[in-house]
Amino acid sequence: MARALSHFNGKTILLSLSKSNPFPPSSSSSSHRRMIVTTAQTQSYWSSIESEIEAHLKKAIPVRPPIPVFEPMHHLVFAAPATKAPALCIAACELVGGHRAQALDAASALHLMHSAAHAHENLPLTDQPKPKPAIHHAYGPNIELLTGDGIVPFGFELLARSLGPAQNNSDKVLRVLIEMTRAVGSLGVIDGQYQEMLGTQSDGRKLSDVAWIEHVCKKKEGESHACGAACGVILGGGSEDEIERLRSFGVYVGMIHGMMNWEGGSEGLMEELERLRGLALKELENFSGRQAEAISCLVEGSLCNV
Amino acid sequence: MARALSHFNGKTILLSLSKSNPFPPSSSSSSHRRMIVTTAQTQSYWSSIESEIEAHLKKAIPVRPPIPVFEPMHHLVFAAPATKAPALCIAACELVGGHRAQALDAASALHLMHSAAHAHENLPLTDQPKPKPAIHHAYGPNIELLTGDGIVPFGFELLARSLGPAQNNSDKVLRVLIEMTRAVGSLGVIDGQYQEMLGTQSDGRKLSDVAWIEHVCKKKEGESHACGAACGVILGGGSEDEIERLRSFGVYVGMIHGMMNWEGGSEGLMEELERLRGLALKELENFSGRQAEAISCLVEGSLCNV
Repeated sequence: MARALSHFNGKTILLSLSKSNPFPPSSSSSSHRRMIVTTAQTQSYWSSIESEIEAHLKKAIPVRPPIPVFEPMHHLVFAAPATKAPALCIAACELVGGHRAQALDAASALHLMHSAAHAHENLPLTDQPKPKPAIHHAYGPNIELLTGDGIVPFGFELLARSLGPAQNNSDKVLRVLIEMTRAVGSLGVIDGQYQEMLGTQSDGRKLSDVAWIEHVCKKKEGESHACGAACGVILGGGSEDEIERLRSFGVYVGMIHGMMNWEGGSEGLMEELERLRGLALKELENFSGRQAEAISCLVEGSLCNV
Repeated sequence: MARALSHFNGKTILLSLSKSNPFPPSSSSSSHRRMIVTTAQTQSYWSSIESEIEAHLKKAIPVRPPIPVFEPMHHLVFAAPATKAPALCIAACELVGGHRAQALDAASALHLMHSAAHAHENLPLTDQPKPKPAIHHAYGPNIELLTGDGIVPFGFELLARSLGPAQNNSDKVLRVLIEMTRAVGSLGVIDGQYQEMLGTQSDGRKLSDVAWIEHVCKKKEGESHACGAACGVILGGGSEDEIERLRSFGVYVGMIHGMMNWEGGSEGLMEELERLRGLALKELENFSGRQAEAISCLVEGSLCNV
């Protein structure tokens, strides 16, 4: 199978160029122009969402006294590599007719949970199975442990304060909160981290087993993207059917992004990515408009700089 | 100053026997008998609450598949030394006329948060300033880190599911949730852990400074007991005034329990405990009945085996 280098999520990876290539290059110059326009619009859509989430987080976590508490918190929140889960939360909210402001707290909380998980994943514990990748530690392990521990309740607080009782949406906020506790908890992201740890402690064969990689990515990235998408629809006032479609779409997006960023890679990975992309797009069939186009771009690696 | 050994929270400590002794022995045989009766009733009251919380937690976290997730979670939740914060939550709810069931999820969530904090406090990190006290580690550091990380969202989930929307209490549940995120977060328990870590890394002088010990205990134990008491009143339908009185009482109870369990001790500690006990009892002045008596016993170390 012919392969070419492509760029996805800031990382150069191998893409298959077979007939069923998940990210085919455009075949004519007119469709190529159309795609460039679409891509530019889509990128600007995602950028605007991400700027708003960042601004919201910066306002929520200013560097203020006590400095030893808020400085590391601020640092670790913005040091974590961004994922598309928070932005997907807002896009899903807008897709079903909701307003961006309705999903901003939930989206920010999702990034907070992710940044805490990232900080803890890189803690130097005494039973570390292998040296952690050389990531920069601005603070000592104890501070990073405690700061991660502090970010999680703060994320739930941000969510619980979301819009407030005056808006009469307490039931929705509680539902979103439960979605989030499950996605980031022991049967979600933490299960993924646990499975990955077991894999790295094993003889190494697991690390190139597609089914295993897929399971880890489903838990680590799939659950959080699914949660983001589902919560966006809930907050935007979508139907139960729309919630479940976007939830499924989110799982596939997260898995695709996780698998494309997988260190090392594996022979059957590209075929599996193609399959997941097809499943993801199927979930969007009943949606149309600018948001649906932008959201579908999340699985079109070579078209969007996502 | 004369001192005698007394027993509080399962630990032998020094108690002053001065005129202003916070826990004076009874002076006559009739009052001694009355106290024994009161003590027995009070102990049975606290025991019944604690049994219900334990049963509720055992039901919430059964050892079920996936075993590698739920077994360590179950273990760490029940391995953490009990505090009175969860039981105080239920007693405070009953004090203002609420039913025990209304506060059971919040009380259990409080213990979950405490057990996660306890697990993380004892993680062997590579920058540990001094060897941790010889506590038994049933699992490796990575598992204990991830399990602690999983317990916290589970606690919030338990709370968010509390009684459910059918009971039309979403606003109360969200309020309690925000109380809890603040108590266990960066300005609460985690600040206490951070301050304690700084103290143990210092030259050791801080460790016997009463003002410093008091601050650490206020954050570590005070905030969680205050939260338990306030949340109990909120869920039991108490007034804002009752919420604030019980919150203040909770702070003092937590501080007293934390300071009495302090490793090493300090010369001025007993006088400070007396002062705090007086302040605590003052907050209960407007309450009466069996619950008020039982609650006041939380600061009467020699009378109750709390």
